[in-house]
Amino acid sequence: MLEADAPLAPAALESELRRIGAERYHNLHPFHRLLHGGKLTRGQVQAWALNRYYYQAQIPVKDATLLARLPTAALRREWRRRLVDHDGDAPGTGGIARWMRLAEGVGLDPCYVESGAGLLPATRFAVDAYVAFVRERPILEAIASSLTELFSPTIIAERVSGMLANYDWVTEDTLAYFKPRLTQAPRDSDFALAFVLEQARTPAEQRAACDALRFKCDVLWSMLDALHHAYVTPGLPPPGAFRPAP
Amino acid sequence: MLEADAPLAPAALESELRRIGAERYHNLHPFHRLLHGGKLTRGQVQAWALNRYYYQAQIPVKDATLLARLPTAALRREWRRRLVDHDGDAPGTGGIARWMRLAEGVGLDPCYVESGAGLLPATRFAVDAYVAFVRERPILEAIASSLTELFSPTIIAERVSGMLANYDWVTEDTLAYFKPRLTQAPRDSDFALAFVLEQARTPAEQRAACDALRFKCDVLWSMLDALHHAYVTPGLPPPGAFRPAP
Repeated sequence: MLEADAPLAPAALESELRRIGAERYHNLHPFHRLLHGGKLTRGQVQAWALNRYYYQAQIPVKDATLLARLPTAALRREWRRRLVDHDGDAPGTGGIARWMRLAEGVGLDPCYVESGAGLLPATRFAVDAYVAFVRERPILEAIASSLTELFSPTIIAERVSGMLANYDWVTEDTLAYFKPRLTQAPRDSDFALAFVLEQARTPAEQRAACDALRFKCDVLWSMLDALHHAYVTPGLPPPGAFRPAP
Repeated sequence: MLEADAPLAPAALESELRRIGAERYHNLHPFHRLLHGGKLTRGQVQAWALNRYYYQAQIPVKDATLLARLPTAALRREWRRRLVDHDGDAPGTGGIARWMRLAEGVGLDPCYVESGAGLLPATRFAVDAYVAFVRERPILEAIASSLTELFSPTIIAERVSGMLANYDWVTEDTLAYFKPRLTQAPRDSDFALAFVLEQARTPAEQRAACDALRFKCDVLWSMLDALHHAYVTPGLPPPGAFRPAP
């Protein structure tokens, strides 16, 4: 429908963006089904937590990169909240610290996690591609790439209930990262969606916004592909990557 | 051995670099064993050729990025040969064009290949990470990252003989890319190795050179991990990626 010469009305563009999520968001990936369904070993969950930590730790880098490019105080104030959410207001607070609690809760050494030593190279390449995208692309596309948050409350709800029900070594405290995300993500994605619907006016801009969301879905999906290959089937971690204790 | 305070002698540094290749070069990846041993379908070989095309097409981008940072005419002349090798002197010549003949030879539409439409996102992220590395890191590390070419003549010999013996739809003409590489790669890696052995004098520089080679091995390895996941086991191409004809 985006091949047409006329731009879409905002509601139609929103439908198109939601359709992309319905087809490509990583809740559809088999690794997530295994994770939430209790089908993974503790070592496999450790691999997920370790690799996802790098993503979490780079999110405020990504947001600061965009913040530095935003032209108005109003936009910068809006985007600054994301830095507060992830970096916190004091040591031990914020999303990165909460993800580290998750990593520790599933049995990883925080120094090892923070070092990035056992990361899958594919994780680093995907996350770094996301930061580069936000640094280099037009602001409309950079903001549109954040719209995967439209779809995150569903996956978080599935994840928390599924992991608590299925892994007796996972506690509510271990999963403390996710609870604030259930309010932060909708607040953030409401703003980003309104911005994109307002700013993407030409067919070319609307296509670029949709492509940015597809790109971001690719980032998240490829991280799970790499985990699945290395730790599930065939289960061949690349040289130097984390190997769960037998 | 690189933990010591004293720098390695050049011969010891060369041994260390060769040891990294012996442990991490992608000739050890199961996908290559399948490819060379005739165990892949034509569709799987197409997926390999398609994704590897993006790598080939970005190699002169990577080399031009480095060329623009080299401080002397002598170094630039040396590095310029790589551009000639890959971009050629006229349309239809050079390594990119020869790789496109390989892609066509295994049955792909060249317009599709060139568009990048069916690429695995992980391929793009890995290759772009390589170009970014060469743009951002010290020249010593950028040059050291090319040292995977020390190990390429072996894999090329295995590949050409294995593919010709095992796939009756692969011809010598299809594999024309590889023959010039058997002389180009050693010439290039002789220069790069001599540069690294001469310039990496402190333990920190020597460690950085080794890490650069490890990084490049990770790039190549992660490309095969992504192919293996998408097209071999479990064989789940991500949304939007190339799907072989049934």
